[in-house]
Amino acid sequence: MVEKNNNIKADINKHLKEEEKFKEKWLEEHHPIDIAEALSELDSSRLKEFTGLLKTENLADIFEEAEEDLQIDILKTKSSQAIIEIFSHMAADDITDILGLLTIRKRKELLRHMKQDDALVVRNLLGYDKESAGGIMTTEYLLLNKNLTTTEALKKIKNIAPDTEIIDTIFISDNNKKLVGRVDLRDILSSADDKKLESLMADNLIKVAVDVDQEIVAQQVAKYDLTVIPVVNKSDILVGIITVDDIIDVIEAENTEDLYKMHGVDEEESSDTSLLKSVKSRLPWMFINLATAFLATFTVALFQDVISQVVALAAAMPIVAGMGGNAGTQTLSIVIRGIALGEIDFKDNWKLLFKEALVGIINGAATGLVTGFILYLMYGNYYLGLIIFLAMILNLLIAGMFGFLIPLALQSLGIDPALASAIFLTTVTDVFGFFVFLGLAKTFLIYLI
Amino acid sequence: MVEKNNNIKADINKHLKEEEKFKEKWLEEHHPIDIAEALSELDSSRLKEFTGLLKTENLADIFEEAEEDLQIDILKTKSSQAIIEIFSHMAADDITDILGLLTIRKRKELLRHMKQDDALVVRNLLGYDKESAGGIMTTEYLLLNKNLTTTEALKKIKNIAPDTEIIDTIFISDNNKKLVGRVDLRDILSSADDKKLESLMADNLIKVAVDVDQEIVAQQVAKYDLTVIPVVNKSDILVGIITVDDIIDVIEAENTEDLYKMHGVDEEESSDTSLLKSVKSRLPWMFINLATAFLATFTVALFQDVISQVVALAAAMPIVAGMGGNAGTQTLSIVIRGIALGEIDFKDNWKLLFKEALVGIINGAATGLVTGFILYLMYGNYYLGLIIFLAMILNLLIAGMFGFLIPLALQSLGIDPALASAIFLTTVTDVFGFFVFLGLAKTFLIYLI
Repeated sequence: MVEKNNNIKADINKHLKEEEKFKEKWLEEHHPIDIAEALSELDSSRLKEFTGLLKTENLADIFEEAEEDLQIDILKTKSSQAIIEIFSHMAADDITDILGLLTIRKRKELLRHMKQDDALVVRNLLGYDKESAGGIMTTEYLLLNKNLTTTEALKKIKNIAPDTEIIDTIFISDNNKKLVGRVDLRDILSSADDKKLESLMADNLIKVAVDVDQEIVAQQVAKYDLTVIPVVNKSDILVGIITVDDIIDVIEAENTEDLYKMHGVDEEESSDTSLLKSVKSRLPWMFINLATAFLATFTVALFQDVISQVVALAAAMPIVAGMGGNAGTQTLSIVIRGIALGEIDFKDNWKLLFKEALVGIINGAATGLVTGFILYLMYGNYYLGLIIFLAMILNLLIAGMFGFLIPLALQSLGIDPALASAIFLTTVTDVFGFFVFLGLAKTFLIYLI
Repeated sequence: MVEKNNNIKADINKHLKEEEKFKEKWLEEHHPIDIAEALSELDSSRLKEFTGLLKTENLADIFEEAEEDLQIDILKTKSSQAIIEIFSHMAADDITDILGLLTIRKRKELLRHMKQDDALVVRNLLGYDKESAGGIMTTEYLLLNKNLTTTEALKKIKNIAPDTEIIDTIFISDNNKKLVGRVDLRDILSSADDKKLESLMADNLIKVAVDVDQEIVAQQVAKYDLTVIPVVNKSDILVGIITVDDIIDVIEAENTEDLYKMHGVDEEESSDTSLLKSVKSRLPWMFINLATAFLATFTVALFQDVISQVVALAAAMPIVAGMGGNAGTQTLSIVIRGIALGEIDFKDNWKLLFKEALVGIINGAATGLVTGFILYLMYGNYYLGLIIFLAMILNLLIAGMFGFLIPLALQSLGIDPALASAIFLTTVTDVFGFFVFLGLAKTFLIYLI
């Protein structure tokens, strides 16, 4: 991939001096997204020079596939009139996304210059939450009345085909314009005689409401193996469709978000974020983490007199805390994925909590036994071994329960279940782990000295 | 969703006594996957009774959508002859997946009973690695010669349409049967006069080799917004296609795998795994984790004399280790996602390593300053504050570097970059953090007492 892009970059530099014919052929041979990737590494004057050489149509293809930063850079090199021309080759939902990146002033100016019909569609789309079905849908779909015959339908489809995103799924409305079903183009093509669309329609239509969160939309598309899902308003009228390629972007974004949030990383960050932005995005979480780490410190400080008498306790402390943290994070990972995939079933909650608690007790006992034995060998005191055995059972029990409860509690509070969950969890396992271990040591102190 | 499934469950129970007509209509109204979900909660005798009532065609629809466990349960209730009949309604790649779940004996028996042509395709598919392009592709595609005209093509498409998975993309071969391009059905439908397919063909075809890993396939599909990607053999001959709905399953599986592996959870585990399986899957990781935790313990044990003289050190230990672990996991999350999304560019490696190191130093200094100040207030010794300040800078520097290097090192060794990376990382930050902090304390011991 990298090598390929270097070739494209070399070609781009050549282009700036090449003749028309080579350019046409070159554009056909390369995928717009590969060209966009190469363009993102040009400086602004070369970018302006190159985009100036392209036909609007070709530029629009590349522009649509570009990352947001490059889109903004390209727009900076163009007049409002030129931008409107680029927009005329693009779908309304893509235009909406780009307008969302601009200042309100620039956005208003561009909307004023657009064709009235197009501007109306875009204004409408701008009203939806960016992460809702309405925010990611496109308005280019095929909707036909259920009373049309297959011959009539095929004629309409042939006319509309060049302008719509999906043609193998045709949505069907009743006489009140309500969405009532879908028909596959293959069924229209292969139906022998002239049938009404209604007779080819499947009954079990999966659809989503326009205000539903994009994560739910993605779950539905994944569950029912859809290539396109219709979006309806409250009156059950089709207002847009969401295609599966946009769903993949949603799934990848939500997965990144879950992993990042769990560990306190800002969702905007990626491997090419600048140093300053990275520090800014991660430092707040480090301070939250510091505050929770001090809770562990205060817990340990409560037992300083015990530690000063039995220093072996300080050496064993990392085991109790570390094992609790890792066991809890195992549970956490499973619950967060279960919620993301829509697999966690709330009526089974108590059963699952009980199971995680049991896993904790069993794994705590198994690893605690080994730990206790090794510490006994190291320090020759079997009470120390017994204490760590008990502390690990209790800490892994707590770890399993909190690894399960933290994401569910966050979710029921309307907060993303992944948010900082690993930080909360390790706070619980550190504080509780130290408290149980050092507390037991204090209780049995006379056997340890 | 849950409520809906409960309705289906009630219906299923009713069915077992209902007449034929109600059943037909009910099957049409519900999506096979919802029925499959409800069936997975029936006991085996009721399952047998219900599946016995269905036409093979309907059963095949439900069977295809069922989870693996349910598929096996259903097969157990059926004779080989009945299974072959179910298979006759299914695609070769789905049959292959199911045969992969059975014993070799049962597999051979079923293959013997299948039609020879079908058995040949399935045998061929069984030869590919389950997680390669060949393992997830289907052999139901449309391939036409580039010299056909649009009218000839449309006639062929009408005939083939009912039997193929994707009809809006037609793949094009040359006279040597090599894959040379693709044409959209929309372009065939809307082309005014009778053109050769070759003239409608796009040049920039994205394809994958049959032995490529499914994660790479998913990256290509996501990058180029494809709904279907062709799979070719070494001679560039089309051997199958992969549709986007299967890609979504791959993406979700790989995401689950990354999150799980990072934290030492078996990829097969989910929220409904049994207690025994969960213990079995997680316990090995807990023991690996225990071994690494002992490394931290041995490090602390080296400094027991220092701790016994300055017990405040024991209280501060969790901060140094915890902050390092969390900072490192932030870096780790970003690098693992970057690799999964194909965004990490190896030529930028050293620049990125340098950046992560700098973020570590800056965040270490910022949080170390606050920590040092609070410890000074708690214990009235500013050398303690200074020591923890220095220890945190060094530990977060190491955390950033190892958070970056561990996944890349695993990847270059051919190991999944997520595998146990969080466990390796916290071992490094624990051992190094304790060593630096307690080592500094030992060096400046006279100022601490």
